[in-house]
Amino acid sequence: MTDTSAVASPVDFEKYGDYGLKSAPAAEGAFVRPPYSFRGRITADGSSGHGAEPGRYHLYVSAACPWAHRSIIVRALKKLEDVVSLSFVDPIRDGRGWAFREGPGHTADPVNGFTLLREAYEASDPGYEGHVSVPVLWDRENGHIVSNNFPDITIDLSTQFEKWADTGVDLYPEDLRTEIDALNERIYTSVNNGVYRCGFATGQEAYDEAVTELFATLDDLEARLATRRYLLGDRLTEADVRLWVTLARFDAVYVTHFKANVRRLVDYPHLWGYARDLYQRPAFGGTTNFDHIKRHYYGTHPQIDPNRIVPAGPSTDWDAPHDRGGPA
Amino acid sequence: MTDTSAVASPVDFEKYGDYGLKSAPAAEGAFVRPPYSFRGRITADGSSGHGAEPGRYHLYVSAACPWAHRSIIVRALKKLEDVVSLSFVDPIRDGRGWAFREGPGHTADPVNGFTLLREAYEASDPGYEGHVSVPVLWDRENGHIVSNNFPDITIDLSTQFEKWADTGVDLYPEDLRTEIDALNERIYTSVNNGVYRCGFATGQEAYDEAVTELFATLDDLEARLATRRYLLGDRLTEADVRLWVTLARFDAVYVTHFKANVRRLVDYPHLWGYARDLYQRPAFGGTTNFDHIKRHYYGTHPQIDPNRIVPAGPSTDWDAPHDRGGPA
Repeated sequence: MTDTSAVASPVDFEKYGDYGLKSAPAAEGAFVRPPYSFRGRITADGSSGHGAEPGRYHLYVSAACPWAHRSIIVRALKKLEDVVSLSFVDPIRDGRGWAFREGPGHTADPVNGFTLLREAYEASDPGYEGHVSVPVLWDRENGHIVSNNFPDITIDLSTQFEKWADTGVDLYPEDLRTEIDALNERIYTSVNNGVYRCGFATGQEAYDEAVTELFATLDDLEARLATRRYLLGDRLTEADVRLWVTLARFDAVYVTHFKANVRRLVDYPHLWGYARDLYQRPAFGGTTNFDHIKRHYYGTHPQIDPNRIVPAGPSTDWDAPHDRGGPA
Repeated sequence: MTDTSAVASPVDFEKYGDYGLKSAPAAEGAFVRPPYSFRGRITADGSSGHGAEPGRYHLYVSAACPWAHRSIIVRALKKLEDVVSLSFVDPIRDGRGWAFREGPGHTADPVNGFTLLREAYEASDPGYEGHVSVPVLWDRENGHIVSNNFPDITIDLSTQFEKWADTGVDLYPEDLRTEIDALNERIYTSVNNGVYRCGFATGQEAYDEAVTELFATLDDLEARLATRRYLLGDRLTEADVRLWVTLARFDAVYVTHFKANVRRLVDYPHLWGYARDLYQRPAFGGTTNFDHIKRHYYGTHPQIDPNRIVPAGPSTDWDAPHDRGGPA
């Protein structure tokens, strides 16, 4: 593929600027995701000002966060571990935002020595008052954030580092982009962000709308996966990565913490088999930290869970054999 | 059975005064159930001052509350509907406590015209400042509460109204009382009140202790019910009623609202079959109001759920055939 094809792909600001929420009915008490302000793109030829280079970029991620987990998975699938470095923030986020301060298993910031991720934003845009989120794609060369706009980050990792990446893995193949983009848009609104719209709704109507949409989409995806190994057929794509990070957290967190409880993942035979099929690969299961996931969600949102107790369950056997045939 | 045998049974203040909590380790943040102050007993011969008579007593209950639901079930099993009257408080409880004020489906207080259940307590003990709970067993004759001590109420309904009751149903047979009492004690502490100890724990250690004990007991009960139709064998008893009211609320409320989420009821083949076996009888399923149950719990505890959103799920098929053989 050419460099410009990825940059000019439909996955850009115009399309993803509102993450599908501008057109969503704004029921009273509906959750609206804040904007992601840093929207630089990496290009193989450097035409964007951020050329793909080994060792130049760093990913600040949370193992708990599904938006960040996407970039961890894509980096692993494309075998870019030695090309783009990565470090973890602490799972618990308090009023000061994502930080590098945990005791056991502590990961200090290996690039800048920050103690708060906010410092990366401040370094990039002095006086920044916006949403401090992960993932952050950091440019070591100029000491600034390239992007905190997660849909762009995975596409750029998938398409712009081909000189160093595993080119046998194409997560965003040109012939499927239109279909991938359309599916991603529905999955984003109804599922990825849909669970947040369930959990952070402050009104019953807003919750009802979100939960209905979420399970209607899961029901459709269940039917889709009855006849396909992956969402797009026999090829693993960006769409699978985006869906999977939400499925991985579904029963452990969203069913309980976000009241997304009409059905659990394990109640969907095809979705659950599909989720295990992916989990049992290093890029998926090997990058999934249920301890961080549970401690983060249950420990971080006093507005919905003042006591911050981390539940013991559920008992879920992610290693159970799956019955998903076809080419891996 | 004789009248005195029931009154002198082990189910009395000495045994149940602390509901098993006095001996429980008081981990930091552990939930401790408040005492139930009204402890009059009804006796067939009137020796307690409250003689069993048709039309004299009224039960104030909540369809949501498991402690009250026990008395609704026993009254139905013993066919005492025309002997002891019953009315419902509203499912939502605010700072003024249980009340008679709902709009649709409203049940006014047919006995005293109270608007708040607190008035029954005030009439019985002027200046009463204790816990205002359901069920309340009310004596129309002297205009006072006989008892709000739920374990006594079901035993008295089961044993003291035999002149008018279905004597073919013996929920507290003399030859099983020791075993019933012992089982009830464990089920009370670990399951009936155990789910509350999970949900109202304000410290992780207290939650961990409660959730471990809860699921250890459910696992044991699952094994027990693998070879018995009912907890005590082939006879339905008081122990089944007490366990069942918690099982009925388990997946709908306790898994989510109280974080009792290691396993769901539907994940236990024997417990779930047993629960459906009972649900599919009028005294159980016909007295179960999931709308009140869900609206009550999710709408009443801002200390653990500030937004009070009522979840859409779970989808649970209580009418699915069960595979519980043996005499009904």
